[in-house]
Amino acid sequence: MGKNLEISLLLDFYGDMLTDKQRDVVELYYNEDLSLAEIASHSGITRQGVRDSIKRAEGQLLDCEGRLHLAERFRRIQERLDEITDLARDIERVNDRFGASNEIYSKTKRIITLAEEISDAE
Amino acid sequence: MGKNLEISLLLDFYGDMLTDKQRDVVELYYNEDLSLAEIASHSGITRQGVRDSIKRAEGQLLDCEGRLHLAERFRRIQERLDEITDLARDIERVNDRFGASNEIYSKTKRIITLAEEISDAE
Repeated sequence: MGKNLEISLLLDFYGDMLTDKQRDVVELYYNEDLSLAEIASHSGITRQGVRDSIKRAEGQLLDCEGRLHLAERFRRIQERLDEITDLARDIERVNDRFGASNEIYSKTKRIITLAEEISDAE
Repeated sequence: MGKNLEISLLLDFYGDMLTDKQRDVVELYYNEDLSLAEIASHSGITRQGVRDSIKRAEGQLLDCEGRLHLAERFRRIQERLDEITDLARDIERVNDRFGASNEIYSKTKRIITLAEEISDAE
């Protein structure tokens, strides 16, 4: 089975909906990039057991996204935050050229910081 | 039992994690503000059955929030978006007084629109 990059993202959002054991196996596979055989020898279950466990966990993560659409919602939020940051930088540049108001400068800086804080808090 | 306002909010975020039947009952109770007796006569189950069903659903919604913290995450996002909107309005006012740049004006308007779009997409 090929590793599905989307699963790694869904794990960030919904990892806490899995049991500890499921999450461990999926994290070893997707985040630590271990093979099925390595996880099997590491956890004392069969390679097939590991594969089944990962398949079940993937199903649950995809089911969570199908219900809550968190990854999709945060992707759209991120697009808009990126645009807000670009606009704030544009305002800084226009302000540099014309008014050079310190007040506008400090307020655009703060907007950029807030947009970053929202992104990082995901 | 008292109606818990937080549940209504959690229902917005996690309602799709409940079964259709559970969601119906909780929505009648919290969003339509029906009494347990009204829901019982409406759904053909006992008042105690309705109460148990609501309690179970509340437990699941609270469990989802305990794991994913979505309501809390979006509350923090909203606080920052409100601050971004206030800053953009401040920039508009400073720009009105001093530079009166059309470019700054249109870019602050766009920031305010994007912040609104993020809020509404919750």
